[in-house]
Amino acid sequence: MTNIPAQIGDSLENVDTPALIIDLDAFESNLFKMAAFAKSAGVSLRPHAKTHKCPSIALKQIEAGAVGQCCQKVGEAEALVRGGVRDVLVSNQVVGMHKLRRLAALAKEATIALCFDSPDQVTAASIAASEAGVQLGGLVEIDVGMQRCGVASPDAANELAQRIHAAPGLIFRGLQAYQGLAQHLPSIHERQSAIQSAADIVRATVERLSKSGIACELISGAGTGTFRFEGLSGLWNELQVGSYVFMDADYARIGGEGSKRFTDFDHSLFVLATVMSKTTSDRAIVDAGLKSYSGEKGLPWVYNRPGLEVVGVSDEHGKIKIGPDAQQLFLGDKILLIPGHCDPTVNLHDWYVGVRKGRVESLWPITARGAST
Amino acid sequence: MTNIPAQIGDSLENVDTPALIIDLDAFESNLFKMAAFAKSAGVSLRPHAKTHKCPSIALKQIEAGAVGQCCQKVGEAEALVRGGVRDVLVSNQVVGMHKLRRLAALAKEATIALCFDSPDQVTAASIAASEAGVQLGGLVEIDVGMQRCGVASPDAANELAQRIHAAPGLIFRGLQAYQGLAQHLPSIHERQSAIQSAADIVRATVERLSKSGIACELISGAGTGTFRFEGLSGLWNELQVGSYVFMDADYARIGGEGSKRFTDFDHSLFVLATVMSKTTSDRAIVDAGLKSYSGEKGLPWVYNRPGLEVVGVSDEHGKIKIGPDAQQLFLGDKILLIPGHCDPTVNLHDWYVGVRKGRVESLWPITARGAST
Repeated sequence: MTNIPAQIGDSLENVDTPALIIDLDAFESNLFKMAAFAKSAGVSLRPHAKTHKCPSIALKQIEAGAVGQCCQKVGEAEALVRGGVRDVLVSNQVVGMHKLRRLAALAKEATIALCFDSPDQVTAASIAASEAGVQLGGLVEIDVGMQRCGVASPDAANELAQRIHAAPGLIFRGLQAYQGLAQHLPSIHERQSAIQSAADIVRATVERLSKSGIACELISGAGTGTFRFEGLSGLWNELQVGSYVFMDADYARIGGEGSKRFTDFDHSLFVLATVMSKTTSDRAIVDAGLKSYSGEKGLPWVYNRPGLEVVGVSDEHGKIKIGPDAQQLFLGDKILLIPGHCDPTVNLHDWYVGVRKGRVESLWPITARGAST
Repeated sequence: MTNIPAQIGDSLENVDTPALIIDLDAFESNLFKMAAFAKSAGVSLRPHAKTHKCPSIALKQIEAGAVGQCCQKVGEAEALVRGGVRDVLVSNQVVGMHKLRRLAALAKEATIALCFDSPDQVTAASIAASEAGVQLGGLVEIDVGMQRCGVASPDAANELAQRIHAAPGLIFRGLQAYQGLAQHLPSIHERQSAIQSAADIVRATVERLSKSGIACELISGAGTGTFRFEGLSGLWNELQVGSYVFMDADYARIGGEGSKRFTDFDHSLFVLATVMSKTTSDRAIVDAGLKSYSGEKGLPWVYNRPGLEVVGVSDEHGKIKIGPDAQQLFLGDKILLIPGHCDPTVNLHDWYVGVRKGRVESLWPITARGAST
């Protein structure tokens, strides 16, 4: 565990850098907006903990109406259950008896479910659950266009659902139907169209299972770029949105309603950085690089400082170009950066520094940081 | 701290995934090759701990002949000193009294130096060293073509060197002269040319300081892509190479001698991943994604499995295309991935699993993981 970069009551200016900052006003606004949408649409909200990796945030989402959390890894589920979350879906396959035993152990303390796309895995999970004397929920993951995990046909889904239904220690819960490739399509029409195609597959699968007398209690999926389509589809009844609490540059680039950008949510996640070198008038170097924000979705944006632009990044440096009309930067100045991609950025840090009106109000440990096993 | 993915004596097949693996034979070969080069060239070796972030590796490098370590951050220096390293250069600027005080505290236990490119910073470091009653080494960082940190002219370097020389608590040690942009230039000729340009700047600076009666004990710099040029230049006398211990796909892409690839070092760093989904014959999904290797320098390579190729990556998934002539993959199979970029990949993990001839021989904690303050 690394140094805590701040103390409660510190001004933002006094937070040590680099630090992962949450603007609590923006964060809460995002939290309530999504909760209100789910309520109005009559669907459940099960936010994705792979984004925040933090039980403190999970409990806030649940307090605002979420039914529980989803996550990708057993290690994340462990962190969530240890942090007080009592309903966790691993929205992913879990392969290997060691991992399945760890997951089954959690089912003594919480309602736990996982996804399947292979008969062998149903057998293995059934053994782990039976050994531990617990029940694990099981969802069939179906490929709704992502070409990643998930069975490829309604018949295969039906066969797997029946197998889960019959397996000791497992309870068939429904379908995992996430179209990840749709989330960042540039226009709202492309995203809508991708979810319409996904819906056709979901509908065909539900009908096929229905013929076998198997009902889908849950149809779970959706992301921040498409949640309205799934939420209003009449098919999905549980939303696995993650990034909405934070927003990032990658989501801020996609199109929203009309010809506008996607602005349903506010940027609430930042990396605070300090100017550590200032040898020319048109350039400043800050102390946050690829070990403070991930770089695979492009460079971070400078927040609320017109004319400043990140133009280069290395392991521990960010190069800021100072445009002719920008306010000058000086050695020791602090700036906020909006990460390109929030999930892998969060995974680089051990602490969220929650700030409201310029003061540190909360310090939340990112207990599932690095929990990829 | 996350779960330890293995136990000593485990076979590689039984290591939990994702896991960061070191092939110890390849690692030691790299270690000794670079030590032998430095010895034959008559220059010091001060490997960069920003790559490995691990005192266990630092001590091995020192045992093989290195004079100490360099690193980018005070947090890394703390981890190194706590782990037994007694000579650390922060090859970077350190801004803010809190950080400078932390660095000065380390100088009670080890020889510590840092870099400067601003007069104000010399004053601040002098105060921190004097308060703590210690001596800090000071190097003037000069910009040798990278346009990142470093003073822009021999006159500015001379002024700063004199200021360090005169400052209580500081000892002027020499020049920091690193050309990071040269490291990954495609051809050996481009890299050589970039270091020749850097050498011109170093030479002019040394001469300017010499006129003021200031000798440069150290001229420190170089990276894995260019170390031969700096090492044989007659100017640099200390090499700050980092990636050579591991190699990564990014270095394996550059050109070497003749028309060959750069193969001075062997791949010793891998991410072990498990096939977690196998729903079609031409595709396998593994359980390691952007939270197990960094993605900003391209996709990882599959090691030693012809016909397998990483074609997509998300937070916790890697998509493997299985070519027509490849050996088939099955659920639960394990494969080794060569990361695109070793430094940010290491920063995602808490443990190195050291493997020799298929058995786990060492477990080294990555104690400077996340130590970016």
